[in-house]
Amino acid sequence: MVRIELEVELTYDIGEQGADFVFNIHPAHTHCQKVSLERLLLSQPVSPQVQTDPNTGNRYMRLRGGPGELRILYAATVELLHHRSEPGELSEVPIHSLPLEALNYIYPSRYCESDRLLRLAMNEFGQLWQGHSRVQAIEEWVRRRVTFTSNTSNSNTSAVDTLIEQVGVCRDFAHLMIALCRAVNIPARFATGTDYGADIALGPPDFHAYVEVFLGNRWYIFDPSGTAVPMGFVRFGTGRDAADVAFATMFGSVVSYAPVIRTVALEDREAGVSLPHHCLQALSTDSGMPYDAQVQALGRT
Amino acid sequence: MVRIELEVELTYDIGEQGADFVFNIHPAHTHCQKVSLERLLLSQPVSPQVQTDPNTGNRYMRLRGGPGELRILYAATVELLHHRSEPGELSEVPIHSLPLEALNYIYPSRYCESDRLLRLAMNEFGQLWQGHSRVQAIEEWVRRRVTFTSNTSNSNTSAVDTLIEQVGVCRDFAHLMIALCRAVNIPARFATGTDYGADIALGPPDFHAYVEVFLGNRWYIFDPSGTAVPMGFVRFGTGRDAADVAFATMFGSVVSYAPVIRTVALEDREAGVSLPHHCLQALSTDSGMPYDAQVQALGRT
Amino acid sequence: MVRIELEVELTYDIGEQGADFVFNIHPAHTHCQKVSLERLLLSQPVSPQVQTDPNTGNRYMRLRGGPGELRILYAATVELLHHRSEPGELSEVPIHSLPLEALNYIYPSRYCESDRLLRLAMNEFGQLWQGHSRVQAIEEWVRRRVTFTSNTSNSNTSAVDTLIEQVGVCRDFAHLMIALCRAVNIPARFATGTDYGADIALGPPDFHAYVEVFLGNRWYIFDPSGTAVPMGFVRFGTGRDAADVAFATMFGSVVSYAPVIRTVALEDREAGVSLPHHCLQALSTDSGMPYDAQVQALGRT
Amino acid sequence: MVRIELEVELTYDIGEQGADFVFNIHPAHTHCQKVSLERLLLSQPVSPQVQTDPNTGNRYMRLRGGPGELRILYAATVELLHHRSEPGELSEVPIHSLPLEALNYIYPSRYCESDRLLRLAMNEFGQLWQGHSRVQAIEEWVRRRVTFTSNTSNSNTSAVDTLIEQVGVCRDFAHLMIALCRAVNIPARFATGTDYGADIALGPPDFHAYVEVFLGNRWYIFDPSGTAVPMGFVRFGTGRDAADVAFATMFGSVVSYAPVIRTVALEDREAGVSLPHHCLQALSTDSGMPYDAQVQALGRT
Repeated sequence: MVRIELEVELTYDIGEQGADFVFNIHPAHTHCQKVSLERLLLSQPVSPQVQTDPNTGNRYMRLRGGPGELRILYAATVELLHHRSEPGELSEVPIHSLPLEALNYIYPSRYCESDRLLRLAMNEFGQLWQGHSRVQAIEEWVRRRVTFTSNTSNSNTSAVDTLIEQVGVCRDFAHLMIALCRAVNIPARFATGTDYGADIALGPPDFHAYVEVFLGNRWYIFDPSGTAVPMGFVRFGTGRDAADVAFATMFGSVVSYAPVIRTVALEDREAGVSLPHHCLQALSTDSGMPYDAQVQALGRT
Repeated sequence: MVRIELEVELTYDIGEQGADFVFNIHPAHTHCQKVSLERLLLSQPVSPQVQTDPNTGNRYMRLRGGPGELRILYAATVELLHHRSEPGELSEVPIHSLPLEALNYIYPSRYCESDRLLRLAMNEFGQLWQGHSRVQAIEEWVRRRVTFTSNTSNSNTSAVDTLIEQVGVCRDFAHLMIALCRAVNIPARFATGTDYGADIALGPPDFHAYVEVFLGNRWYIFDPSGTAVPMGFVRFGTGRDAADVAFATMFGSVVSYAPVIRTVALEDREAGVSLPHHCLQALSTDSGMPYDAQVQALGRT
Repeated sequence: MVRIELEVELTYDIGEQGADFVFNIHPAHTHCQKVSLERLLLSQPVSPQVQTDPNTGNRYMRLRGGPGELRILYAATVELLHHRSEPGELSEVPIHSLPLEALNYIYPSRYCESDRLLRLAMNEFGQLWQGHSRVQAIEEWVRRRVTFTSNTSNSNTSAVDTLIEQVGVCRDFAHLMIALCRAVNIPARFATGTDYGADIALGPPDFHAYVEVFLGNRWYIFDPSGTAVPMGFVRFGTGRDAADVAFATMFGSVVSYAPVIRTVALEDREAGVSLPHHCLQALSTDSGMPYDAQVQALGRT
Repeated sequence: MVRIELEVELTYDIGEQGADFVFNIHPAHTHCQKVSLERLLLSQPVSPQVQTDPNTGNRYMRLRGGPGELRILYAATVELLHHRSEPGELSEVPIHSLPLEALNYIYPSRYCESDRLLRLAMNEFGQLWQGHSRVQAIEEWVRRRVTFTSNTSNSNTSAVDTLIEQVGVCRDFAHLMIALCRAVNIPARFATGTDYGADIALGPPDFHAYVEVFLGNRWYIFDPSGTAVPMGFVRFGTGRDAADVAFATMFGSVVSYAPVIRTVALEDREAGVSLPHHCLQALSTDSGMPYDAQVQALGRT
């Protein structure tokens, strides 16, 4: 089990007309992620509305800010207990056996134009053994070609752009990997949250974007930008691509300042809480069992 | 009330390896659409699996076809009882009041890159009175610019392509209208089904693609290609765009033949069943009341 | 006649391997532009090679810089004597009468994808009276839609992008206007140089990009971004689009600093030298007569 | 030496307003290509105007056709005497030594967006030995990825599209190869003409598009689609890409029928005329010596 203390601080300058915001910065409640001790501070006397999407568990916070500065401080303690699998045992699921929910994630989306990449993906990955290793081959293909460079892409940049221009940030790596997976009929979705353990050269903790792929009967985490330690990712949302799970969507005249993220992993060996680390097993945030039952089960073994 | 006899006949030639199919040709069961007397004939001894997406009501049929010809005949009787509203009474819903389900439809999708059209849409439609009339202005803007021409677009064509090249088929008109609506924060989704009453010059009845826009508290039908009579549209599916609700998605080596669609509208004045016709009211396939309750309510008034 | 004192100062930081440069910062010698008192200072002991393209008169300076700082100072005095025409007398030239040289400028180029805009241009401008006024209508169409904003476009941005996103800098205005002219078969080319008289809000004098259109039997200046006074433009180069006449193209690892441009217009009423000003006549930098002959002719009248 | 009897037959149906045409179907007169016995038959009493571009030697025929059928028959005898080089002896030319004329062909053009492919090309080909073998590596890279399939691309398709979709015809192979060469600073241009010796499965002789690359001090032929025998290519034109050298550009309402091409290679061993065949040497249509001088020189050796 992993325990992360999370703080997110956002600052905006809102124009005279006010502005609407949709945030996705609340970690999702999932079978593998337990969120507690949540605190939310707002510098304006507005009452945010937080709703949970029943399909994804994403929590969206909407509010209408008035003119002037809006500062938001969100903090929580997040426990992560990943479902772990041996990569070699994870197979792809044929189209006719995919759960309907997963089927939606083989279709193209705004930033993942898999429909244009069918031949390319088939040429590159069509002959590979179908399973976790093929997904890993796609991940490595992306990582080998694309160079991580800040400020080279923007909010319109799509997988096809990244394939051509071979440069981008975590979001672009994720979009390209997703598009290539879908092009060979493997369901893949976009996940957002916070990173952990990233190289110090990349700066302080930050929002992160990565990939979840459906293998066996679960969604497994992949981190194509390879910049951080997946076991320490707090998950905010999942969706088709960045269009579904922007950290913040603004409607109106707003100046945004750089977000400030703080994540601290706690260690408590007696309680079975260890620091996030790279591991060879495949990690899933999906589990058949509710969080507390899992913890109990873990205690018993 | 409108009653349509529907027949869809699809023919494929499947390669030696067999092929998987996902169809969306079953009309959705909605509060405004009642489907009865369904028949399905398959020329191969395969057992299709039909599942209903709980969010949209879309019915997806999956099957795995063997080598050789696959012929599918689907037939049903569909009753349509639209919810009707006065256009002048339909207002747009501000972001903070949108139901979460509708919020998803203001984001860009594969074929509706609204994120690239914010300034254009704001310049063209930003000053207009917000409500049904603004949506109608967008619909007319699209219809005035785009010319309906077969074989000018393909399955990769997106709203931006159509805006630039100003030519396309019903699907392209729909994508462009949706992208422009979303760019001014009006939820809009893609709807598929069969047309009705199209100009004879366009040929026999066909699959159709059109638009539903969220106004007041419902989704209302718009037909930007302006080729047919919305009251007679049987609805198969709704989604973000064509990526979600293709009539048929094939996985494997398959040759497709032109589909054959037959739709007949029945008239039965005593039972209150009339022929579809153009009307000035806004039509919705959404209703707060189950179909049968609506029919009863109608009987009572 | 107009007389401009021009200074261009460029600074680069070159990596260890050295780098090749191609500059186009020498004003062209044309029948309407006389360049004198040229000075070139280089901070490195390199011998630049300046060549004149016989088709366009563009002067390209090539040099290979060594590691470290490279500073270039170019200065000259430029006299401009535009050929002037009454706009109402300038007609478009039919395809079969275009000089071969002008014919090349109706075809699409990297940043001016006129081939995708045929229908749009025909719909918007196809019914207009053919001549200078139609070109002016295109110029105004572009200026009305596109908003001048720094740092919204980059070196990959093309006319189609600008049409969609409706924002850009002078280069983007020029590309879009050119693409639309070509789409209705009017030869149009990209011109570069320095601006003059731009609004103080846009900062100090700068490199500039504008348009030349073939009407009657000459190329006439248009300034779609509308930010400056065309009579004061010093011309460096003309080409299909920005790909042909970049101010500087670098091959190797180079950091560029912002260029510093100084332009001063001199007045000398006795010698017939006046300050650049907006005028209603159409200005051309093309003339049938060599510069000195023109000055003489002017003296005689 | 190679001798080809060439016939090109074009048929159009012109609308009521008439139409302008620009053709590029006359083989260029070059030092390596001698055109004789030219015949031109037109089914309408129009007087075409044929002009030679002084830079490229391309011959453009312009004419204005009246309503109704227009049939054009062009025939000629073409002798080809390629300059031959040993591939191993051909080196790339550094930027600072490139002739100005060749420099133009390292910049991006409409269908060859080399500016977007810098990183990709550097990653794939940046480490290779610079010379003919690197160009060959690019050619093979393209040929291995792209599948030749008719009717998969259209007149808007560019190198980036082909890179993504990995399918196309000879024109698309050529555009992609050109874009990749330019991205590593090797001048490359688009060449058109007729093919020779193509696999019978591809049908009768046809128009062809291929590539010329500047190596040493000449332009050398490459045929990335690999469908035919370069020694038998009759050359019509060269340009930046297909925008410059379309076989026919039409202005007005015109229906085009499939062109009919006939090419016959003659053999005359005594006169030193042999059939075109694949050879290991690099072939150039550039030569320092006029055609007749070459023939004489050849006679002497």
